Amino acid sequence: MVKVVVDAMGGDYAPAAVVGGAVEGIKKCDCFVYLVGREAEIKKELLKYKFDPSRVEIVHAEEIVEMHESPANAIRKKRNSSMNIGINLLKEGKADAFFSAGNTGGVVCSATLKLGLLEGIERPGIAIVMPNYKGVSLIIDAGANIDPKPLHLVQYGIMGSAYFESILGKKNPSVGLLNVGEEESKGTDFAKETYQLLEQSPINFIGNVEGKDIFSNQCDVIVCDGFVGNVTLKVAESLAETMSLSLRQELGSNILGRLAYLLARKSFKSFKKKIDYSEYGGAPLLGVDGVVIIGHGRSSAKAVMNAICFAKDEVERNINQNIMEQVKKIPVKAAC
Amino acid sequence: MVKVVVDAMGGDYAPAAVVGGAVEGIKKCDCFVYLVGREAEIKKELLKYKFDPSRVEIVHAEEIVEMHESPANAIRKKRNSSMNIGINLLKEGKADAFFSAGNTGGVVCSATLKLGLLEGIERPGIAIVMPNYKGVSLIIDAGANIDPKPLHLVQYGIMGSAYFESILGKKNPSVGLLNVGEEESKGTDFAKETYQLLEQSPINFIGNVEGKDIFSNQCDVIVCDGFVGNVTLKVAESLAETMSLSLRQELGSNILGRLAYLLARKSFKSFKKKIDYSEYGGAPLLGVDGVVIIGHGRSSAKAVMNAICFAKDEVERNINQNIMEQVKKIPVKAAC
Repeated sequence: MVKVVVDAMGGDYAPAAVVGGAVEGIKKCDCFVYLVGREAEIKKELLKYKFDPSRVEIVHAEEIVEMHESPANAIRKKRNSSMNIGINLLKEGKADAFFSAGNTGGVVCSATLKLGLLEGIERPGIAIVMPNYKGVSLIIDAGANIDPKPLHLVQYGIMGSAYFESILGKKNPSVGLLNVGEEESKGTDFAKETYQLLEQSPINFIGNVEGKDIFSNQCDVIVCDGFVGNVTLKVAESLAETMSLSLRQELGSNILGRLAYLLARKSFKSFKKKIDYSEYGGAPLLGVDGVVIIGHGRSSAKAVMNAICFAKDEVERNINQNIMEQVKKIPVKAAC
Repeated sequence: MVKVVVDAMGGDYAPAAVVGGAVEGIKKCDCFVYLVGREAEIKKELLKYKFDPSRVEIVHAEEIVEMHESPANAIRKKRNSSMNIGINLLKEGKADAFFSAGNTGGVVCSATLKLGLLEGIERPGIAIVMPNYKGVSLIIDAGANIDPKPLHLVQYGIMGSAYFESILGKKNPSVGLLNVGEEESKGTDFAKETYQLLEQSPINFIGNVEGKDIFSNQCDVIVCDGFVGNVTLKVAESLAETMSLSLRQELGSNILGRLAYLLARKSFKSFKKKIDYSEYGGAPLLGVDGVVIIGHGRSSAKAVMNAICFAKDEVERNINQNIMEQVKKIPVKAAC
């Protein structure tokens, strides 16, 4: 049975939402969870639910890495944080995957230091699946590495390509570089250098793509630095929310609109599901030697439940093995 | 009467959409336009419309700066481009404002070189008004300067603040720095240095804001580098389009949805107007010594018409005078 470590103290609504989501998760996708964090608080939350006790184990961790803390400091100073102790369980081989909705930088830092990186990879990257009109795109990096070197983006391209192939079964997916224009000459020196390196790499690099192409199904994998990726992701999430609110307001502004809203509610739900973060719950941190899933700070119980099932899927798909095979095939350092 | 120079050859649908929009513009907002570009082509387009000929003058320009050309090269090599000749008209005092939907980098480059910069400003920035649930935010820079120094972002803050005050009448608007987290310690070295400089400047700096805050009405003016600004803008535009398409598709997927869509069409239009670029048509290039409005490459005739009226408004509001007064009041260099 797949064992998922859950950082019970990570996220804006922890431990309540995390514990609730974990209990739902073991039911929904038939797995085992370690709940890592303050034992008394976790026990109190668990009392609210009925579940098979053989599927849950609490691992006490006294300290919590707060959302605002500097990751490096937090990892160094709080050795007994739920994050650190949780990742140790993965490192020791007691579990198959780790999930946290806590401080993203903290998870990246702790996972990198403790689990190490896959051979040939110098920085991990967060991969996010973005829906578009016709299908999905994968964005990497969504915020693990906000100040990368061009070579790191090439490694993101390789990992993203292998990941996209693994999860969507599409051979040789197309990879684009997020830039301010399509032409090779566009962008900063960083973007130009990355373009050259990507062109020399043996992945299916199709050139620069623009912000508008993220939702246009222009290419399968979009590589960018973690600063731009983080902003992009948050802009998209927030605009989707704002548009839903505005549309509801507009539709509610006259009697026909209100009627239309009532009639359309079912369709709205089906649409919202496509863009709702809680539907998939988490994003993989690619490049670390282990399955690490990062959740949204605002993760609800539903998001946690889905992230746990997502983590279980990732373990069963053997994603890291696939990435390593791709990386091995490719003479990254020679090419760059 | 306000005289607006229009680059008749700029934009994906030029000269047809530009000439058509210009004819509508002179009718809608009572102004005079110079149409700069290939005389024969402009004349041919003008034949399609009825208008007061005393309100339009064609100024021949043989060359065109293409969308994909490197701006610096284009400006240097194509001295007789519609862009260069158009900006010359502004420089010579024959006109009050310049509009182009052509190569953005080309407009920025030509305007900076020919018109010069306002005193105290080292780089121009494109300011974009973004709607949100409750009002609007101003983003600066949306792509004029993709590799700025921290000091340039402080100048964007000052110009954005003065501009927001001028157009929306809100005294001392709040200014935020677009970053990957709210805390002062977040972000790249560039972001941290910019934060320090903004804090020392006498504008109403409220700290870091995130991608999600662009549509949350968190602050009035959001400063960022032109790379991030350009990606943000294009992501937002494209997501808005994708969501409209998806929603329409969802609503059309069953009979009740189709009925709802029919009933809600009016509300849809009112909503779409909020996010539709063609409704305002252009964005000011702040910091250059003249009123320069940049249009979207995909500008339709409607967008051009609105951009011309927007340019006329900007002239009448005396925006640059207001900016200069704000800049003068503030010891930018001493503070930074």
